[in-house]
Amino acid sequence: MKITVGIAGATGYAGQELLRLTARHPALDVTTAMGSGASEQARKLPALTKIWDGEITPLSVDQLAATTQAVFLTLPDAVAATVGPDLVARGVRVFDLSGTFRLRDAAQRHRWYPAVPDFDEPVVYGLPEHYRADLPTARLVACPGCYPTAAVLALRPLCDADLLEGDVVVDAKSGISGAGKRPTERTHFSECHGSVAAYGVLAHRHGVEIEQELDRPVTFTPHLVPLDRGIFETIYVRTRTGVGATDIADTLERAYADAPFVRLTGDALPEIKHVTHTNLCDIGWKHDPTSRRLVMVACLDNLVKGAAGQALQNLNLAFGLDEVTGLL
Amino acid sequence: MKITVGIAGATGYAGQELLRLTARHPALDVTTAMGSGASEQARKLPALTKIWDGEITPLSVDQLAATTQAVFLTLPDAVAATVGPDLVARGVRVFDLSGTFRLRDAAQRHRWYPAVPDFDEPVVYGLPEHYRADLPTARLVACPGCYPTAAVLALRPLCDADLLEGDVVVDAKSGISGAGKRPTERTHFSECHGSVAAYGVLAHRHGVEIEQELDRPVTFTPHLVPLDRGIFETIYVRTRTGVGATDIADTLERAYADAPFVRLTGDALPEIKHVTHTNLCDIGWKHDPTSRRLVMVACLDNLVKGAAGQALQNLNLAFGLDEVTGLL
Amino acid sequence: MKITVGIAGATGYAGQELLRLTARHPALDVTTAMGSGASEQARKLPALTKIWDGEITPLSVDQLAATTQAVFLTLPDAVAATVGPDLVARGVRVFDLSGTFRLRDAAQRHRWYPAVPDFDEPVVYGLPEHYRADLPTARLVACPGCYPTAAVLALRPLCDADLLEGDVVVDAKSGISGAGKRPTERTHFSECHGSVAAYGVLAHRHGVEIEQELDRPVTFTPHLVPLDRGIFETIYVRTRTGVGATDIADTLERAYADAPFVRLTGDALPEIKHVTHTNLCDIGWKHDPTSRRLVMVACLDNLVKGAAGQALQNLNLAFGLDEVTGLL
Amino acid sequence: MKITVGIAGATGYAGQELLRLTARHPALDVTTAMGSGASEQARKLPALTKIWDGEITPLSVDQLAATTQAVFLTLPDAVAATVGPDLVARGVRVFDLSGTFRLRDAAQRHRWYPAVPDFDEPVVYGLPEHYRADLPTARLVACPGCYPTAAVLALRPLCDADLLEGDVVVDAKSGISGAGKRPTERTHFSECHGSVAAYGVLAHRHGVEIEQELDRPVTFTPHLVPLDRGIFETIYVRTRTGVGATDIADTLERAYADAPFVRLTGDALPEIKHVTHTNLCDIGWKHDPTSRRLVMVACLDNLVKGAAGQALQNLNLAFGLDEVTGLL
Repeated sequence: MKITVGIAGATGYAGQELLRLTARHPALDVTTAMGSGASEQARKLPALTKIWDGEITPLSVDQLAATTQAVFLTLPDAVAATVGPDLVARGVRVFDLSGTFRLRDAAQRHRWYPAVPDFDEPVVYGLPEHYRADLPTARLVACPGCYPTAAVLALRPLCDADLLEGDVVVDAKSGISGAGKRPTERTHFSECHGSVAAYGVLAHRHGVEIEQELDRPVTFTPHLVPLDRGIFETIYVRTRTGVGATDIADTLERAYADAPFVRLTGDALPEIKHVTHTNLCDIGWKHDPTSRRLVMVACLDNLVKGAAGQALQNLNLAFGLDEVTGLL
Repeated sequence: MKITVGIAGATGYAGQELLRLTARHPALDVTTAMGSGASEQARKLPALTKIWDGEITPLSVDQLAATTQAVFLTLPDAVAATVGPDLVARGVRVFDLSGTFRLRDAAQRHRWYPAVPDFDEPVVYGLPEHYRADLPTARLVACPGCYPTAAVLALRPLCDADLLEGDVVVDAKSGISGAGKRPTERTHFSECHGSVAAYGVLAHRHGVEIEQELDRPVTFTPHLVPLDRGIFETIYVRTRTGVGATDIADTLERAYADAPFVRLTGDALPEIKHVTHTNLCDIGWKHDPTSRRLVMVACLDNLVKGAAGQALQNLNLAFGLDEVTGLL
Repeated sequence: MKITVGIAGATGYAGQELLRLTARHPALDVTTAMGSGASEQARKLPALTKIWDGEITPLSVDQLAATTQAVFLTLPDAVAATVGPDLVARGVRVFDLSGTFRLRDAAQRHRWYPAVPDFDEPVVYGLPEHYRADLPTARLVACPGCYPTAAVLALRPLCDADLLEGDVVVDAKSGISGAGKRPTERTHFSECHGSVAAYGVLAHRHGVEIEQELDRPVTFTPHLVPLDRGIFETIYVRTRTGVGATDIADTLERAYADAPFVRLTGDALPEIKHVTHTNLCDIGWKHDPTSRRLVMVACLDNLVKGAAGQALQNLNLAFGLDEVTGLL
Repeated sequence: MKITVGIAGATGYAGQELLRLTARHPALDVTTAMGSGASEQARKLPALTKIWDGEITPLSVDQLAATTQAVFLTLPDAVAATVGPDLVARGVRVFDLSGTFRLRDAAQRHRWYPAVPDFDEPVVYGLPEHYRADLPTARLVACPGCYPTAAVLALRPLCDADLLEGDVVVDAKSGISGAGKRPTERTHFSECHGSVAAYGVLAHRHGVEIEQELDRPVTFTPHLVPLDRGIFETIYVRTRTGVGATDIADTLERAYADAPFVRLTGDALPEIKHVTHTNLCDIGWKHDPTSRRLVMVACLDNLVKGAAGQALQNLNLAFGLDEVTGLL
């Protein structure tokens, strides 16, 4: 019997990607797909005709609780903050794609997510490659977005093995779909085409999230580059004295030997085009042992491994399915 | 002494292009640049620092009349409809970039521009290559936009010489800046990137304007293609029996022998990239005398020859300056 | 037991797409993937790591015949012309993606494919929506490319129902991957970005192919637009006197009632972005009964429905599988 | 009387930009434009019709020496290495756009430009904002390219004022025209579109050039991003203890008070689109005095301020003209 799932926030870019992925997933039955508000009109999504022909209905926690075993949330932070624990309390397992539940430190969360009230529900940080063991019993999973996923997958094993020294610079280049579906001056085609822009410099909450997962100071700068899907992170750090090329390669290979969605490209650096429309994260690096400079590159599709695909990977593991089901 | 000019609607894409062009024009003094409304805040345009360092002030017809000999209008149709004749009545020569004054037939104008009241002011259609003689005495010039400019420059000489037969199909591909600066779902980067869309099919007022200038039925279909500036029109028509390759070439060459901004490329078809950031219109064609099929291609930059540059070319001719002043 | 398949020409854009699709197909075993020449080096495709980890080997008909029941060919015309019939003679079923076998009239084929020698092998034109009945017994299938697929899917039912009158204009806008993987001036990023270009005007062999399938004169103009994947065709034609909106809609709906990959969007015109990375072809239209003008729009992904996906759809039907297997 | 100038290498992207700029320059007479080799065919450039209608002739040092007072060289390094000093010896002033003459340290030059023989000619580093005083007497000017120009303009005043501490990271995002006009896999539209790629990581000669001008270790990483023209550099460094916001702003404002082409945007960070098709370099920054992190952003058009415009600015100053002549 199939697992019944719902999607709340199904009309945004991540929500539509979730519909595409879950519609063809052999073990899931998408019983419910909702918008982001209780007063929205029910409607069809013409772009999904013959892919998922259901109707998008207004947001209703009661209906989600009545019809699903698991729910994906792609809602504004403050809405997710109440809907998520509410669903968990009613026995529904929740996979949240917002930033609401990601920061463990309450003071940091208050600062960066001021609209989010406190909650008691235990949270699993949904980066399956590093929290796989916690997923089978998880009830509320905070799935990290594109920026932390790429940076943490690249750096976490090296931090854990204590190969690095000093600060980290993460220079991220993101496709415009990462800025969301709402039309703004920033997302106008003519403002983005032929241009590059930095934003949130020295003040971006995803930088704090990366610091949480690495336990190390991070200078994080996101940029919008003129493409639709995918991010590319260039990471600058120094290795400890004596660390050599094989230390880096061996550490990463051990960490991801069983990870179906992490590909280590060594010094053939990754490119966005090789990962878009997949759940893969590609990681490459160059190291100069003399100056101890290490430059890493990590790429992924912000709507798949950075959003919908990662959430589905979490659900697969949470329900005891093969991690790759519906994601190849 | 320099000619004093003003720009009303200086913050849109065409308005900013006008500022760039007029700021470096040796015979013009830009005394006034205004927004599109009377209640806008005065402000600077940072992107124009060290190019034009003046301030954008709220729309005021009194101030325009007091400080300028000529005004460029890039305002909404209904606003232009009152501001234009008002300025003319006060002795200011007006170069209007909206559609307000372009259609000569009142019934057509009522249908396609329902918000525009009737006006008595005589209008010159500001396509200098075909209305050059009327400009020195013109007081109100209706500058055609990108779509009619390209189509009429390509076809008018062949129509005048009676070389064509039957209907015309004009399939236009436009950069997104042609859709204006307001953020909408249609102009969102992620909706345009990697996509093409048709709009206004069988119901676009620029099709009517092209028909007016050619006196011939036209099927006009505009498309948005994922680039910022420039349009490309592919034109399909049949030649009359007996019309040969030299008839077409000779007719076009005669028509544009003295036109500094029309380049005839013959059967080496034009490309958008050769005309962007210039006031040029490139025109090429292929003819099959057996089937009498004629396919023409016309390209121009929608913000220059399709808007600001054309308006400036009209002003140059209206004031007795060399047509190319400030446009090379 | 799985069907053993091979791909000859696996390193081009269509070939790599075939590898991605067949690697996850539940009923196929990709035993062999080859380059386009006998003297190429064997090599891996890093972009396909963890998707298809096999090795690309040099082209060898003997090896294909020894290891496969079916072969996809994406080879130069002249090579396909000998490899295709050779494989069929050895009992391998062939799905050819080149133009080699598509034109039924020998004189036309000699003119447009001068390098292709004559062949005796019976050919099925691999547009499954119109030749479904012929596929189960087909031994050599000539899969149409993106341009004819879109135009023929849109127009064939209306031609068959005799609703149209006179010539057809097909104005096609194609992504650059349609120009192939070889670096040329035409495919240089800086030549394509921000530009549009027409090519093959009044002289393109796909125009002849469309005429063959419609039995009607066609003016076909392909354009390169600055996107990677997908084509968009705008089609201009006249309906016969008395043809109304329901005639058109009913005819198309009847034709494609059972076609899982054709979506009729009516007067909500299709956009490329809704079909990329799918095997779908979206078709919409606008009709003016007074002037009898009909404008149709058809979109598809040139590498999927216009190449690899269509070939796989043909194979599914040829081997008695569900048409959609591996294509959702 | 006008200054006679020549261009050697006029068909590449920088060369064509030089033709566009010099053709409309009021004090220059472009007597000669040559290709990059002695055996090339003479030919016209159709894209420049009615802009510069001369003929591109084969490379000839004799002819350059006979017809010009000044020559711009955009030639391969090894060719520039012999042509440059040869022309200087014959009394022609040379403005070289290659990397040949930029590195002052012979050992570094041998390493990064192995094909370049030693030369005795004194060289002026052609960054006018910092070497203005040397230009009036310069005979051989090595114009820096886009990467060093942006980084050195941003950092040099802060280095000179001793406000910085430790290493610098320069993360550069470049449009594809920076990779040159030759079609390669790297410049294929389908490889660049929708993608980002890093190259020359920890091993790029422009990093060495930046180190030369800053006298400080630099980690320089160039990336190709999917746009045509323009670069964007994000710069990471630490300020010395006690350095405050006004120190940074005052230092930069003093340095560029008289520089017509440098715009300081403060904490409103620059964007590529504001500088393309201009000779401007925009510089902005964010500073966190607590952590002493400084993030700077510098943007310019790689073909203008990063190539042709800068060379022309140098020539203007070398010949005693106003720096901005022909560049507004």
